[in-house]
Amino acid sequence: MKARVHVMLKDGVLDPQGEAVRHALGGMGFSGVESVRQGKVIELDLADGTGEDTVRDMCEKLLANTVIESYRIEML
Amino acid sequence: MKARVHVMLKDGVLDPQGEAVRHALGGMGFSGVESVRQGKVIELDLADGTGEDTVRDMCEKLLANTVIESYRIEML
Repeated sequence: MKARVHVMLKDGVLDPQGEAVRHALGGMGFSGVESVRQGKVIELDLADGTGEDTVRDMCEKLLANTVIESYRIEML
Repeated sequence: MKARVHVMLKDGVLDPQGEAVRHALGGMGFSGVESVRQGKVIELDLADGTGEDTVRDMCEKLLANTVIESYRIEML
């Protein structure tokens, strides 16, 4: 069983990594990039019987900093 | 127009970040996590008319290191 967790900075939180990517793309001649946000994706291989609730618990306790980050869980 | 790019280390490439997460989850009492891979997700806000080909070009030139990373583009 697999789960995929997307962790992104919340709207309004400054994203210097994304800003650096946007700037670099502009410098390479890619016009038309208005904004960039960069986040993490974590793919978990789980033993059978590990449910979405457990993954949510992992997100709250370790995978995301819920003060500034939001997360989304996808069970595959 | 939005695009989302997932960048993951290719299979077989050592992922110390993922390994650290797996180890930390085990230490916190989450059993049943067999393996963890960590990657990046990049969300791009694009001007109208910027197509998937341009995003692919960005991936090849900047967003992914195609020697060790694979990428997947999702147009939203």
